[in-house]
Amino acid sequence: MTIRPLHDRVVVKRLEAEEKTASGIILPGSAAEKPDIGEVIAVGAGKVGKDGQRRALDVKVGDKVLFGKYSGQTVKADGQELLVMREEDIFGIVE
Amino acid sequence: MTIRPLHDRVVVKRLEAEEKTASGIILPGSAAEKPDIGEVIAVGAGKVGKDGQRRALDVKVGDKVLFGKYSGQTVKADGQELLVMREEDIFGIVE
Amino acid sequence: MTIRPLHDRVVVKRLEAEEKTASGIILPGSAAEKPDIGEVIAVGAGKVGKDGQRRALDVKVGDKVLFGKYSGQTVKADGQELLVMREEDIFGIVE
Amino acid sequence: MTIRPLHDRVVVKRLEAEEKTASGIILPGSAAEKPDIGEVIAVGAGKVGKDGQRRALDVKVGDKVLFGKYSGQTVKADGQELLVMREEDIFGIVE
Amino acid sequence: MTIRPLHDRVVVKRLEAEEKTASGIILPGSAAEKPDIGEVIAVGAGKVGKDGQRRALDVKVGDKVLFGKYSGQTVKADGQELLVMREEDIFGIVE
Amino acid sequence: MTIRPLHDRVVVKRLEAEEKTASGIILPGSAAEKPDIGEVIAVGAGKVGKDGQRRALDVKVGDKVLFGKYSGQTVKADGQELLVMREEDIFGIVE
Amino acid sequence: MTIRPLHDRVVVKRLEAEEKTASGIILPGSAAEKPDIGEVIAVGAGKVGKDGQRRALDVKVGDKVLFGKYSGQTVKADGQELLVMREEDIFGIVE
Repeated sequence: MTIRPLHDRVVVKRLEAEEKTASGIILPGSAAEKPDIGEVIAVGAGKVGKDGQRRALDVKVGDKVLFGKYSGQTVKADGQELLVMREEDIFGIVE
Repeated sequence: MTIRPLHDRVVVKRLEAEEKTASGIILPGSAAEKPDIGEVIAVGAGKVGKDGQRRALDVKVGDKVLFGKYSGQTVKADGQELLVMREEDIFGIVE
Repeated sequence: MTIRPLHDRVVVKRLEAEEKTASGIILPGSAAEKPDIGEVIAVGAGKVGKDGQRRALDVKVGDKVLFGKYSGQTVKADGQELLVMREEDIFGIVE
Repeated sequence: MTIRPLHDRVVVKRLEAEEKTASGIILPGSAAEKPDIGEVIAVGAGKVGKDGQRRALDVKVGDKVLFGKYSGQTVKADGQELLVMREEDIFGIVE
Repeated sequence: MTIRPLHDRVVVKRLEAEEKTASGIILPGSAAEKPDIGEVIAVGAGKVGKDGQRRALDVKVGDKVLFGKYSGQTVKADGQELLVMREEDIFGIVE
Repeated sequence: MTIRPLHDRVVVKRLEAEEKTASGIILPGSAAEKPDIGEVIAVGAGKVGKDGQRRALDVKVGDKVLFGKYSGQTVKADGQELLVMREEDIFGIVE
Repeated sequence: MTIRPLHDRVVVKRLEAEEKTASGIILPGSAAEKPDIGEVIAVGAGKVGKDGQRRALDVKVGDKVLFGKYSGQTVKADGQELLVMREEDIFGIVE
């Protein structure tokens, strides 16, 4: 049971607090929209540009990504909570 | 009696709760705009881009799709309730 | 006495309730913007794109179309009430 | 004394009520933005598109046009009240 | 002492009431944004389009133009009050 | 210590009242957004257009420019107050 | 542990007050959105334009940049507070 996102959408699984601490990224608790970290589970094939060419995404499955806490749509699949968001809503890749 | 959607619009039939459970996707009850699942019944021929080329849609008839609960317009045809939405409002394909 | 719509505009005549029932399409009474059905009476020559080419419309005279109840502008001509709307406001063609 | 409209603007003279009745078009009194009818007095040379080409307008002097009641800007010239609006605000040509 | 407007901006000097009357244009006193008349004092070199080409303006120095009463920015230079506005805010040329 | 503005941004130093009077430009005190005058201290290299070409700015260092009183961001460098704004916010060059 | 920003995003580390003073830039305390200074820690690969070409950023790692105080998203990594913003939100490079 998987979700294959369309166009420039990406499926992300939020990392648990302990995983975030292990990675050395601490997220501040006060900002209005606090960024969060997750792992990319699936990526869309990319959006078709005005020139008719499809643009592949820059993120790939397995990337750990930083994104706004309220970015995307929550959905549960096979018991795990996932997020579907646009690549545009991802700030960067955590390495 | 069928609806042939225009451009980038898609006709979707919402799946019943039992069908969703069977597919292993559970939709959370609290989010402001809860995603929902349905089956694609008909697709438009695609939008004509600025280069004059028509872009065929990525979803096709029979696809099970994930979309925002309040996406699209409800219409009843031959006794069944259908949704007409833009492909843009579809998050992804459930497999 | 006819109206020749400009660009991507379309003239539509709403179908009466009995005609809608006969066609098997029942429109729900509760949605905020309830879709409605009508017959296309006249179509514009299409919009000129950024490449200077005019894009002919996908709907044609005689098509039965589904559109938002509050779409378009009402006008009376020769005693019948007509709607002028953009093709973009039409959800699909009913067959 | 004339107004030569710029780009995609059009100068329109509203038809009097008796002229409208004679033409068989009756405008409903209840809609929020009631369409109105007028005669085109002058047209702009057209807008220059992103490709550098000027697009001539579809309406021409003498056309009877249908437009939103509150479309355009009112100005008086030589004792007659005229409207300056964009071609985009014109719904269609009445024939 | 002169102002050389940038891109698609135009410097306009409002005509006095007597000059307007002489020209046969009477401006109505009731409309929310009443059009006004002025003389073009200086024009920008034009905006550079997406194709890298600069589009010269359609108005030229000396043109009498019609524009919205609250269009543009007021500035005084050498004792006279001038307006700086975009060509887009000009409705047409009065002849 | 200098600021090198990015893309289409410009660094401007407001002229003092006496300098403005000397130049013959008097700014009215009543308008909601009163234009102001300043000298260009630094200009960006220009914005890259959709065709991939960078568009050099029309203003250059040393130009006296007219702009909206509340345009741009104030910053102090080496004891002088400067403004960083987009070329788009500049109305014209005062000569 | 690093953040690799996507597209046109940039990771910036705010300079402390003493560093700012040393650089001769004093930021005014009263403006609604006070600009701030920081050092670029990482830059995205650039956005892909409508022509399919990726545009490299103008800022590079090590640049001291001026930006709006409330620009970007705050995140903590390895104990230091960082900002992720778009290059568009950067006013200029301080030298």
